[in-house]
Amino acid sequence: MKKKYVFSFTEGDGKNKTLLGGKGANLCEMTQIGLNVPPGFVISTEACLAYLDSPGKELPEGLMDEVRSHIRELELATGRGFGDTENPLLVSVRSGSALSMPGMMDTILNLGLNSETLPGLIKQTGNERFAYDAKRRFIQLFGKVAMGIGDEDFNKALEAVKVRSGARSDVDMTVADLIDVAELFRQVVAENRLTPFPDNVWEQLTISIKAVFDSWMGKRAVDYRREFNITPEMCNGTACNVVAMVFGNMGNDSGTGVGFTRDPATGENVMFGEYLVNAQGEDVVAGIRTPKAIQGMKSEMPDLYHQLEELRYKLERHYHEVQDFEFTIEKGKLYCLQTRNGKMTANAMVRTSVEMFAETLLSKEQALLRINPEHLEQLLYPGLDPSFKGEPLATGLPASPGAASGRCVFDADRAETLGRNGTNVILVREETKPEDIHGFFASKGILTSRGGKTSHAAVVARGMGKPCVAGAEGIRVDTEHRQAQVGSQILHEGDVITIDGGTGNVYLGEIPTIEPEFSDQLHTLLGWADEFARIGVRANADTPHDAERARYYGATGIGLCRTERMFNAPDRLPIVVDMILADTSEERQRHLDRLLPIQRGDFFGIFKTMSPYPVTIRLLDPPIHEFLPFEHVLVKQLEDLRGLRKGLLSMTRFIDTVQLLDSDVHAHWMQGLDRLPLNVRELDVEAVERAVATRELMLQRVRTLREVNPMLGHRGVRLGVTIPEIYKMQIRAILEAEAECRKAGIEVHSEIMVPQVCNEAELKWVKKYVDDLRAEVEQVKGVKLDFKYGSMIEVVRACVTAGKMARTAEFFSFGTNDLTQAAFSFSREDAENKFLPDYQTLGIIDENPFETIDVEGVGPLMKMAVERGRATRPDLKVGICGEQGGHPASIRFCDHIGLDYVSCSSPRVPIARLAAAHATMVESIFDY
Amino acid sequence: MKKKYVFSFTEGDGKNKTLLGGKGANLCEMTQIGLNVPPGFVISTEACLAYLDSPGKELPEGLMDEVRSHIRELELATGRGFGDTENPLLVSVRSGSALSMPGMMDTILNLGLNSETLPGLIKQTGNERFAYDAKRRFIQLFGKVAMGIGDEDFNKALEAVKVRSGARSDVDMTVADLIDVAELFRQVVAENRLTPFPDNVWEQLTISIKAVFDSWMGKRAVDYRREFNITPEMCNGTACNVVAMVFGNMGNDSGTGVGFTRDPATGENVMFGEYLVNAQGEDVVAGIRTPKAIQGMKSEMPDLYHQLEELRYKLERHYHEVQDFEFTIEKGKLYCLQTRNGKMTANAMVRTSVEMFAETLLSKEQALLRINPEHLEQLLYPGLDPSFKGEPLATGLPASPGAASGRCVFDADRAETLGRNGTNVILVREETKPEDIHGFFASKGILTSRGGKTSHAAVVARGMGKPCVAGAEGIRVDTEHRQAQVGSQILHEGDVITIDGGTGNVYLGEIPTIEPEFSDQLHTLLGWADEFARIGVRANADTPHDAERARYYGATGIGLCRTERMFNAPDRLPIVVDMILADTSEERQRHLDRLLPIQRGDFFGIFKTMSPYPVTIRLLDPPIHEFLPFEHVLVKQLEDLRGLRKGLLSMTRFIDTVQLLDSDVHAHWMQGLDRLPLNVRELDVEAVERAVATRELMLQRVRTLREVNPMLGHRGVRLGVTIPEIYKMQIRAILEAEAECRKAGIEVHSEIMVPQVCNEAELKWVKKYVDDLRAEVEQVKGVKLDFKYGSMIEVVRACVTAGKMARTAEFFSFGTNDLTQAAFSFSREDAENKFLPDYQTLGIIDENPFETIDVEGVGPLMKMAVERGRATRPDLKVGICGEQGGHPASIRFCDHIGLDYVSCSSPRVPIARLAAAHATMVESIFDY
Repeated sequence: MKKKYVFSFTEGDGKNKTLLGGKGANLCEMTQIGLNVPPGFVISTEACLAYLDSPGKELPEGLMDEVRSHIRELELATGRGFGDTENPLLVSVRSGSALSMPGMMDTILNLGLNSETLPGLIKQTGNERFAYDAKRRFIQLFGKVAMGIGDEDFNKALEAVKVRSGARSDVDMTVADLIDVAELFRQVVAENRLTPFPDNVWEQLTISIKAVFDSWMGKRAVDYRREFNITPEMCNGTACNVVAMVFGNMGNDSGTGVGFTRDPATGENVMFGEYLVNAQGEDVVAGIRTPKAIQGMKSEMPDLYHQLEELRYKLERHYHEVQDFEFTIEKGKLYCLQTRNGKMTANAMVRTSVEMFAETLLSKEQALLRINPEHLEQLLYPGLDPSFKGEPLATGLPASPGAASGRCVFDADRAETLGRNGTNVILVREETKPEDIHGFFASKGILTSRGGKTSHAAVVARGMGKPCVAGAEGIRVDTEHRQAQVGSQILHEGDVITIDGGTGNVYLGEIPTIEPEFSDQLHTLLGWADEFARIGVRANADTPHDAERARYYGATGIGLCRTERMFNAPDRLPIVVDMILADTSEERQRHLDRLLPIQRGDFFGIFKTMSPYPVTIRLLDPPIHEFLPFEHVLVKQLEDLRGLRKGLLSMTRFIDTVQLLDSDVHAHWMQGLDRLPLNVRELDVEAVERAVATRELMLQRVRTLREVNPMLGHRGVRLGVTIPEIYKMQIRAILEAEAECRKAGIEVHSEIMVPQVCNEAELKWVKKYVDDLRAEVEQVKGVKLDFKYGSMIEVVRACVTAGKMARTAEFFSFGTNDLTQAAFSFSREDAENKFLPDYQTLGIIDENPFETIDVEGVGPLMKMAVERGRATRPDLKVGICGEQGGHPASIRFCDHIGLDYVSCSSPRVPIARLAAAHATMVESIFDY
Repeated sequence: MKKKYVFSFTEGDGKNKTLLGGKGANLCEMTQIGLNVPPGFVISTEACLAYLDSPGKELPEGLMDEVRSHIRELELATGRGFGDTENPLLVSVRSGSALSMPGMMDTILNLGLNSETLPGLIKQTGNERFAYDAKRRFIQLFGKVAMGIGDEDFNKALEAVKVRSGARSDVDMTVADLIDVAELFRQVVAENRLTPFPDNVWEQLTISIKAVFDSWMGKRAVDYRREFNITPEMCNGTACNVVAMVFGNMGNDSGTGVGFTRDPATGENVMFGEYLVNAQGEDVVAGIRTPKAIQGMKSEMPDLYHQLEELRYKLERHYHEVQDFEFTIEKGKLYCLQTRNGKMTANAMVRTSVEMFAETLLSKEQALLRINPEHLEQLLYPGLDPSFKGEPLATGLPASPGAASGRCVFDADRAETLGRNGTNVILVREETKPEDIHGFFASKGILTSRGGKTSHAAVVARGMGKPCVAGAEGIRVDTEHRQAQVGSQILHEGDVITIDGGTGNVYLGEIPTIEPEFSDQLHTLLGWADEFARIGVRANADTPHDAERARYYGATGIGLCRTERMFNAPDRLPIVVDMILADTSEERQRHLDRLLPIQRGDFFGIFKTMSPYPVTIRLLDPPIHEFLPFEHVLVKQLEDLRGLRKGLLSMTRFIDTVQLLDSDVHAHWMQGLDRLPLNVRELDVEAVERAVATRELMLQRVRTLREVNPMLGHRGVRLGVTIPEIYKMQIRAILEAEAECRKAGIEVHSEIMVPQVCNEAELKWVKKYVDDLRAEVEQVKGVKLDFKYGSMIEVVRACVTAGKMARTAEFFSFGTNDLTQAAFSFSREDAENKFLPDYQTLGIIDENPFETIDVEGVGPLMKMAVERGRATRPDLKVGICGEQGGHPASIRFCDHIGLDYVSCSSPRVPIARLAAAHATMVESIFDY
């Protein structure tokens, strides 16, 4: 039996994309579920391969006979004739392989037009202009696609006619113009090719089919397949789709439109769309007429509206998804030309998921899986009004999502002063330090000109859930003069700007923003996600307030409580600085004793808020010089203080500098400001001397503590070992807070975590502090404590020696920021400003490994740590608290290697909960 | 048959340390090879275990009968009686387990002394003082060891007597004093214990044996075994050695001494040692009499000297090693009390190895294995005269071995000026930068107050083979005033200091040093080493001159040629700076074009020198900001230049600042210096403006290029990708140099190595440059090139993904400095100054991982890389060029995991060659 190469849409197997290509199979499916698809047929990929394999590039024997018989069917179905002069059948010809890929042949429309059929088309449509426009489009498409003539020549001819006729755009061209264009296009073809433009419609069709098949071996297509490793097993050859053209411009019983089966903005279960009577799709695109809302059809074309409603119902019942479809009405008959899954807002996705489950259109799994977790970000952070279309003033890195407007302020103190007065403030800095923390609290958003997505500003902003744009290098911040320069523009203190932490854009002026909403439907959906998820979701939270937010977003524990954040609060930083400046262990202890009750109170509050969920507390991590001002700031302050003493300062500097004095002296001076000009002789010389002495000491410490590579420096457990007093105070605060909770009947599951550990000896060393303090606290407080002791796994060596680590650690928590930094030897504070963007542009690195776990390079280290750790301690609890913990692909990987939980910033918890459910539903694709 | 527990030295198996303990077995062996060991016996470890296991802690039945019969033998052998009042036999009692360990029982001497035997001892020795001294020592030792009385009480009693008698030291005490001491000691015992001091000699002996056995379960011994994981299979129970005391103070036919079988300083094959007539060992220790050179015995005691010569011969024939032995002559009879391998200078070790092979005392393997490779360092670097004993002025890190004296100079320019005039100069800096490189060339040694063993100063100094002490934090360098402060002491420019890079000590003044010698014998020995070594030894060398040194020391290739060193040379750095300051790719290319012939010339010279050995050239590695001055230096220079313009500078600063102007302007001004004071109006204002403009540009670049963690920054291949011109110039220089060599008939094996690679895409990217340039150079030069292209493996991710790396890389070279840094997350520039010393002191880290490969944590990453790489490419060549490549333990590990070669600084090549031979001779002990 001869091989069958051609399949009518009514007979082709809608699931067989290999044979029919994606587009062909889809058209078959639509036809067979009863949608009015224009009649057509598919020439199979097998025909393509047979053609390409044949010695003389001949279409397989009998193929054109099959085609002819299918064209005959189209003629019967449409009542038109292919090449007929009265009522011509026109067709479109398209390629379509199993996987969609660029570089394949474009569509040829209106095939079947020639000198003889053109009058027929004019008669049928009553629209001469449309017919000539169709003709010139056909010539260009055919000439380009089937004959290989570049667009430029056609466009040049078109421009020439437009110039001559004075038409500003295509729509201004008259019939005569279009006739001229068509003639010129014929000449273009004649000049470029030896063979003339085929007037015979069968010749047109045969050449087009061959052109479709040839395009499979075109350079771009071949390159694309090689680039993306598309093998013949995955996709081989292209099919060719031939479809009868239908026209919506055949009178007032014709029309065209697009529709959504539900409202894509709100998700409401009503049809949504637009249509035009007596028009073709191009008319909508060209913007000649304004389409009407689809609801208007109800009165204008009630029958057709009813058909559309039927179509909507059929589509959703069949596809189990909101559909975005195109339709044309030709002389009262509705054709569905195309349908695909509808793109919707996150809100609409959530609502339709919940409602379509109720309507039994979706299972819970389907309702969850159809939503991309990242999409939920829209619902969790304020965003710019999507209708806003303005040019950004500058662009940095999207460091913490959300949008905010406010007045520029260039230092944290001013931000605090203005913020307290209710002014919306954006803190603009070159980079931030812990000493700026009060400015963060007071600001709506943070903008820095240096630093990456893991810079201090970015991490703190994310932790607080405030928008941040970091490393906007086009902005030159001049703190001294309280202004910033962007190109030639100067931003003064008080100028209003808007930052979008989701895109990294910075705008001048106030741009309207949309507030997030955590709807009941989202709650329902996430509840379902929790039913399916295997891996738990915790939040990173540093204060009782943070812990409340964590619970609000549905976190079932704190995976990372950063104790240094507590050190940074404005009431504590001075004590911390005193502690760092201490010369003896005793003096240091004295300052730590002041911090103890504060930390204990923090921990108590967090435990209470999170009860009965676990709370993992990380002991001090950053190098202690981070708590001191920058060296150049101190140098400047000293210079100013000396200038103050000599009476050399300008008034602005004078006011700034007086703030450096003891607070009472400062207050005294401020009161005197109305008696300006100030008499320098009134100066409290001793207060100035004190301020100088303190700053000299700080400067000396800053210089002693200076490190070439602070991220790899004297920090974490290295501090814990060499300056034991700090860790001991923190451990005591944790244990005492736990004891107080137990006495108050609050269930606590605290976990003490040591950062930067590289070998078991470090863990054992700190364990001694813990054991001693536990014994003491249990004895003094008269309660039995029950907590876990564990290790951050953020040093490569800790992964390698995890088997030993797990002898002492009862849990592991991956710090994938640092681990990634170490695995790549990329400074995470520098890479994103320096070479990483280039690397991504050049394709050397696909994804920023600081955003999503590098499964190939970092993944094996994590897997090694889990396996070795659990070999020693089978019930070892393992989590992740790095930035990547909130990223869906990373969550999937973490689920895959058996982690117990992920931890991320609170607003990302919903995203993580959904991603955690997804992780259990999709098959593993990890290969490393 | 009853178990035998006691073995005479004449019958015990000298190899059975398990049964007899190490000490006991050794004494048996010495006895049985015919050395005159004082007679004695060993009570076995089995007796110890039986005693400890028995319910009532009873000595095994019959044990004391055996002991009695062996004491009888001793009496027969010595002609003395145990407890005899006329001629008493005294014995020593000692513990001794299979492995030596601290915390076990000390020796009890003179056991057998009591009120009745004391007069006999006086009579025999004719030395009342000696007898009472022996008595008080016995009481203290027995009291402490067998009765558990602390030393403090005894020492207090001793002090009381000394105070009363006015004796300044023990030797000043009279007989009466010693009698008092003995009496007081008895009282101490009586106060501390219910039981009196046993006067019966058998009771003394029984208690002592039990005390030896008990000490096995003492706390310190048990802790020690647990700490070092010593299992019962390795070592169980202690033996107890009972040996007859012999006395060298029984008249002029008695004496005592120590000897070496060869001269331990030179290795010459002559007996070496000292002796004293009529004296005990303690007399030597107490320094009462000066011992005589052993050659003196030839005339004084010819017979005994002859016996000693025999002893020497026997010892070497038996032990196949130079021996360090102790002897006592009692009434004309020579006893050998102890022998062990002799400690010698490196020179002596080498000489004896070569000579003892010739004498057939050693095989080649033995001759090689007996020398610790590190010991050779003495022979390869100048060292301080070992007789010098002074206090160092300050101490830093031993960063590059060797010792040097010279005048302090605080900047590189001065160093160059003075150095050229022939002055010996030590460059003293806070830290160094590439711009100081001319100062290195001009100096005898480098001293810095900041930075670790892998700081710029250290690495460059090692590369040049110059001594360096780094990070001497006690020194405060004040470049501006050309002085440094150490405590209260001020070092001025020109003051002479001596630095010892082997210890890190810094001394005031000139200390005599000893020059290294690379002797013929060392050549012979290393030739043997090469016969056995499997792993090759290359050197790190950056210039043709370095390459010559590499060959001199026996390197068979260059494992690391750092191209940035070539950028740092004084004639090139200005071009490099211009290149960095370039605004456009074209301008950058223009400066690189000036560098091209220079680099090509370097490579040609190195290839030629090393032919036919391979040369691995690393493309540019450091971040480019390293080629610019420090920010604070530029700020200062700008300030000075502005001061110069305004005529505000002091004369010193004026002279320094004028040097910043164009060189011709500078020269003009310098000529005018004799017309001081200079008229400021003569200033070439334009030259100053030019200097200001250049420095402003540099400052701007420095600030743009600034990184938080430069070691993880924009460097290595990341520069190669983002600023392609630099790598392309370097690759071109390499390929053109190779082509020139080939044309000149010189055999070349060049290897192009890319640093800081983290994924294969980077390697492929640079490979494109290489392929293009290869085609061009081959075409232009008309020769076929043949080189290898490979990757540094210094990024953790490169180890993990080594399988993919090896698809593009033809060789790997481990950069274990960076790899260690990344595996530990320890900044190698900071760790050694900050927490690492504490970590080592506290035992958290045993060995500095930047000196020797951390087998447990870094080792598995290396092994993974080798295995995965060779799985892809079985003939993958793998080497190591990190600092650890010259460290014997690291070489052993590298050999173990199958590396092809190690590469280290030239003077360490001999050490590495010997270590490479050792690696093949010892069984693998790696466990990770």
